[in-house]
Amino acid sequence: MNVEKELQRIAKIVDRSLFSYLEQGQPEKLMKAVRHYPEAGGKRLRPILAYVVAQAIRMQGKRAIPFGCALEIIHNFTLVHDDVIDQDPVRRGRPAVHVLFDVPTAIIAGDAMFARGFEVISEIKTSPVNVNRLIRLTSTTVWLIAEGQQMDFDFEKAEKVSPEEYLEMVEKKTAVLFSCAAEGGAIVACGTESQIRSMREYGRLLGIAFQIWDDVLGITGDEKTLGKPVGSDIRNGKRTLIIVHALTQLAKRGNKKRGEALLSALGNQNATQDQIARAIEALKDLGSVDYATRIALDYSDKAKICLKSLDKSKERELLSSFADFAVGRAT
Amino acid sequence: MNVEKELQRIAKIVDRSLFSYLEQGQPEKLMKAVRHYPEAGGKRLRPILAYVVAQAIRMQGKRAIPFGCALEIIHNFTLVHDDVIDQDPVRRGRPAVHVLFDVPTAIIAGDAMFARGFEVISEIKTSPVNVNRLIRLTSTTVWLIAEGQQMDFDFEKAEKVSPEEYLEMVEKKTAVLFSCAAEGGAIVACGTESQIRSMREYGRLLGIAFQIWDDVLGITGDEKTLGKPVGSDIRNGKRTLIIVHALTQLAKRGNKKRGEALLSALGNQNATQDQIARAIEALKDLGSVDYATRIALDYSDKAKICLKSLDKSKERELLSSFADFAVGRAT
Repeated sequence: MNVEKELQRIAKIVDRSLFSYLEQGQPEKLMKAVRHYPEAGGKRLRPILAYVVAQAIRMQGKRAIPFGCALEIIHNFTLVHDDVIDQDPVRRGRPAVHVLFDVPTAIIAGDAMFARGFEVISEIKTSPVNVNRLIRLTSTTVWLIAEGQQMDFDFEKAEKVSPEEYLEMVEKKTAVLFSCAAEGGAIVACGTESQIRSMREYGRLLGIAFQIWDDVLGITGDEKTLGKPVGSDIRNGKRTLIIVHALTQLAKRGNKKRGEALLSALGNQNATQDQIARAIEALKDLGSVDYATRIALDYSDKAKICLKSLDKSKERELLSSFADFAVGRAT
Repeated sequence: MNVEKELQRIAKIVDRSLFSYLEQGQPEKLMKAVRHYPEAGGKRLRPILAYVVAQAIRMQGKRAIPFGCALEIIHNFTLVHDDVIDQDPVRRGRPAVHVLFDVPTAIIAGDAMFARGFEVISEIKTSPVNVNRLIRLTSTTVWLIAEGQQMDFDFEKAEKVSPEEYLEMVEKKTAVLFSCAAEGGAIVACGTESQIRSMREYGRLLGIAFQIWDDVLGITGDEKTLGKPVGSDIRNGKRTLIIVHALTQLAKRGNKKRGEALLSALGNQNATQDQIARAIEALKDLGSVDYATRIALDYSDKAKICLKSLDKSKERELLSSFADFAVGRAT
């Protein structure tokens, strides 16, 4: 099975519904801001996850699409606000919402998308009890995302961040939404409570693997494929697992040359391309990129173990490949 | 009946629940930001409205409290984001969230409050069908609030805003949440569909009256009682009904002196106290304050007519007094 092709096939199914949820509203400026990121692309991983889980449990993929779309809208809302918070000017190779329009419009558009996500969930055609459960799941998830965003933002000014703190932040900021997608897919498909729990855990582990790999790509990836400048995490002083590891190594072993190379660029918005290149070299030399890759692979492997709660099927295979893809992809 | 005392009595009942919904979470900085506006006060008008409507229909006020608290949390979330958008440094006599902390924390705290609001609704002890209905009602309401915020923000740069456009903006930005509170109170109390519709309309008309009176207070009110500087709407170039009326009058009649007095202060962040005082004088002379007061009273009167769908009761009386209070209050 070619996992990327399969994901793209399902993404197209998702998109046919997704944009129908983003049509109604005014003024036009707000609607353009609301549609800007969804139109710019994205892999639709969260709706795909909900779809494939529901398909694996009871061939109910189609019924999971509205919930998946709601999560995609909510995911995009968090990106809009995140870019304001991080003052990131570019997303998916296009200007960020707050750059294309302005900060107020980006704040309002994010709020509007959040509201639309819940509206979409409230209209899902399943039992009212299930709808309530999805609403509760999603609202507690978004609360945790906010906790993760706050941690992430506070980390930039923190003296020291431990790998454990980093992992807690990533679990909240990123993994809970993957977890919510997989759990919600299982709920919509009326899976057993044990399956629902396993899928929640699968999504959580997958999400952590995904984010750590994202951090790796931000260092080793290709600028054009990524749609954002390589090294922007370094410039922004983001405490990714790679950087957390490197700083710990430096504190332990005190490697002056590498330390200087990293610290002259970390959190330095005006760092030159050359400074960024030398910081990346230092991160590789310190073994930090390899370390993060290893941890990501470990989470991905653990995610796959959760799949045992499902009967064997083509879709279960796909979920397994999905976990591999999360830590092998180029974008 | 002393309406203010009665409102304060119910506000106390609301507050006993409200803060229990704002305890759980971390980090502490985020939680402080989340509680900052609710702790600073506020009249709790939206939860009170839900309570009194539910009480009037079937003596079910207590059952409406969680829904009312959710709306109060959502209302406060919109205030947090609004203050970032308007760069307002003060709210309820205390520094705004983005001033006390920073803009990122204010954005994140607002999002978190939004999520908590929906979580609270999802846990309401009524039939799952009712919960779904409340979720749908609230999510479409918040979408409309975002539309209203966008209109309000865009108005500041608009050449001309008509009274009709102003009223559409106010309906969305403010009145829909009053409407949602009254309608939700009726839903929780299992009112008839006709009562639910009447309460929605009562809340809508009351909300418009309330906001126009708020604009009047922003010009004629007392700084200490209001907790914000008189004339800040003028400095921010807000298109309130008073200002919309004044600009229309000036365009029609061309009163040079008053025009200069108003325009030198409108949208001028550096306007002196004296300039603001002269602008206020001009607004009064042009009949704009009287005009807005008249319109507010008219909406309040229409709101009271909607109460005919309820049986006579002490609570119906209170809803009628509430409509009077909306346009007579000093804060």
